[in-house]
Amino acid sequence: MMDELLLSNDNKVIFLVLDGLGDIPNPAFGLKTPLEAARKPNIDGLATKSGILGRIIPVDTGITPGSGPGHLSLFGYDPVVNEIGRGVLEVLGLNMDLRDGDLAARANFCTIKDGLVTDRRAGRIPTEETERLCAMISASAKEVEGVEVIIRPGKSHRFAVIFRGVGLSDKLTDADPHKDNKPFVYTRAKTADAELAARVINGFIDRVTDLLKAEPVANGALLRGFSQKPDIKPFTAKYRMKSLAIATYPMYRGIAKVLGMDVKDEPGSYEEAVAILKKNYNDYQFFFFHVKETDLAGEDGNFEEKVKAIEVVDKIVPEIAGLNPHALVVTGDHSTPCPLKGHSWHPVPLLIATKTGETDGLAFHEKNCIAGSVGTIYSKELMALALAHGGRLDKYGA
Amino acid sequence: MMDELLLSNDNKVIFLVLDGLGDIPNPAFGLKTPLEAARKPNIDGLATKSGILGRIIPVDTGITPGSGPGHLSLFGYDPVVNEIGRGVLEVLGLNMDLRDGDLAARANFCTIKDGLVTDRRAGRIPTEETERLCAMISASAKEVEGVEVIIRPGKSHRFAVIFRGVGLSDKLTDADPHKDNKPFVYTRAKTADAELAARVINGFIDRVTDLLKAEPVANGALLRGFSQKPDIKPFTAKYRMKSLAIATYPMYRGIAKVLGMDVKDEPGSYEEAVAILKKNYNDYQFFFFHVKETDLAGEDGNFEEKVKAIEVVDKIVPEIAGLNPHALVVTGDHSTPCPLKGHSWHPVPLLIATKTGETDGLAFHEKNCIAGSVGTIYSKELMALALAHGGRLDKYGA
Repeated sequence: MMDELLLSNDNKVIFLVLDGLGDIPNPAFGLKTPLEAARKPNIDGLATKSGILGRIIPVDTGITPGSGPGHLSLFGYDPVVNEIGRGVLEVLGLNMDLRDGDLAARANFCTIKDGLVTDRRAGRIPTEETERLCAMISASAKEVEGVEVIIRPGKSHRFAVIFRGVGLSDKLTDADPHKDNKPFVYTRAKTADAELAARVINGFIDRVTDLLKAEPVANGALLRGFSQKPDIKPFTAKYRMKSLAIATYPMYRGIAKVLGMDVKDEPGSYEEAVAILKKNYNDYQFFFFHVKETDLAGEDGNFEEKVKAIEVVDKIVPEIAGLNPHALVVTGDHSTPCPLKGHSWHPVPLLIATKTGETDGLAFHEKNCIAGSVGTIYSKELMALALAHGGRLDKYGA
Repeated sequence: MMDELLLSNDNKVIFLVLDGLGDIPNPAFGLKTPLEAARKPNIDGLATKSGILGRIIPVDTGITPGSGPGHLSLFGYDPVVNEIGRGVLEVLGLNMDLRDGDLAARANFCTIKDGLVTDRRAGRIPTEETERLCAMISASAKEVEGVEVIIRPGKSHRFAVIFRGVGLSDKLTDADPHKDNKPFVYTRAKTADAELAARVINGFIDRVTDLLKAEPVANGALLRGFSQKPDIKPFTAKYRMKSLAIATYPMYRGIAKVLGMDVKDEPGSYEEAVAILKKNYNDYQFFFFHVKETDLAGEDGNFEEKVKAIEVVDKIVPEIAGLNPHALVVTGDHSTPCPLKGHSWHPVPLLIATKTGETDGLAFHEKNCIAGSVGTIYSKELMALALAHGGRLDKYGA
């Protein structure tokens, strides 16, 4: 229905996404959350003067989302219908260039003995070793059956592979026994049109095994999470807004690219990120501004670091809000509560700073968000609300 | 599911619908809403003594409804599945008698020069001019191909037409270029069964053009929004309640008729409206009592007028509540916030005055409604809740 209601104008909408923002009352810090404890005069000034609060549920009640579903839903894509595969997320996180038709995979170096995978992580070899092995493989396994192979090392024993060629499909089983001391397995095509991909991948695995046969520990490779760019309506077409993503971390630039957003630069700091926003402000209507540090602190269970990450963001808020967009949304893709040291299912605090001055008059944190006028909605509903505040939606029916 | 649970009894349910009731905190009035600022001792007495609060979302998060979808959802009809066309709403608003099979259209007088529509609104000619032209056309274009034509003037350059005959369909394109300085266009049938309707309409247009050829400004007519009464299960059958609509404005009596409610009188004041309610109280189980002034004040952006409209309604509440219905629902079809001067997507405040004395103990306004025990539900879910409080729904399952 929303399709028919979309207006074409130059009104701006900004999403300031603090990754893993949501948290839970922390017994070690007087039952405050980091968002509650942070000194954030700019965000709270915005919230009390012209902000409305609420909460968003990324996927469903009780469901903990990964980064893919977290961001898909934030941008109005149903995360259950649409999926960004694990191989795709891995290559995006390593800043690799993923194109239409590419087949992406996550990979581990492993230890194989008499056909048994005795250690799926090859003793967690250091990153430098993985870099050395990837360079060696890159140099001599550039293609299989006419399909180009691009590999890039990750952290420790991990690396990622892109297979680039015509007619590849991701309907494939993992080439990974998923447990130690099980027999090595090749990938198998789940459908007939994936036969070529299976042959190419298994051919690549054989080449790698051959190249590594003299290595004492990492003498094999396991590939899994085969996936391709999802068939998704590009954001710009879906919402009739030219969209720009600004993110310091490659994975989020990658997710934005998968959704068809423009990614012009790779900012090294928030100052650079804000400069990119300002420079491009006139040429776009939608801006996705991603902040990673809140999630990292949450994953580390570090309350003070998460507070600090929020306070750092607070300092750049005046420059963002000063652009005077029709709607400035401040929220997260999911919660990463410090006490849980990982992503969680908790609803994510939401602030919409309105141009009309509509306000709940409350500071921005989890507890106030429960009482906010937006209520608790699904993340996938947020875009409609942002477009409404952005003056980008027509009336439905007479 | 609800169908199977409907009980047959004489328990009464009253919907007191304040059109466009919902509003947002107004910076010019201490961040109060009109509902919060209004002195309404009767409504608040009811709310605190035996009222429960909540909010209703007319169509969906972020979606701004027109009057059609707003009322359809209030009465439990899915506003996305069911639609009241623009032509139908127009003729209802002009108090015309719309029957099954009738084809309704909105129309403008326009200026045509050498086949180009140079002004779609004929210089916005005064209402009296439109009345004169409509009278002239009515007198000599009473039928086309055996199909009766009924026309009625609206405000300024606007009028409405009903085509009454056998075999008409509304699967038609607009006979309107929708922009100035485009060539005039006839309607076209989108399906074969609309060929007759297209011929009749285009024949009518030719007759009008002929009749207006000596007029200096308004020398043509544009017809659009062709529609017929929707195929909807009548309210009385859907809920096993005889239903009566009481509204001072014709459009809302019209919508009620489309839903199969009875409309007995045309009250000129709320005193008359209350008298109609009392007179018919024993003969019906459901009552739709419509108040328009709240919406008009919202559209005008007039906070004080909206406050006054609510205070006027408060004075008649004792008589309505004094009838002691099983459930008295006080709400709106959508929000019309004064700062926005138009319909909006904001959830609408809801009060259900219960016969059991169940209460949240809170005065009735937007902020308390966020915290109310009903929570935030979709408008189309409200009927089930009203019937439950009305003692009109059986238990589901053993």
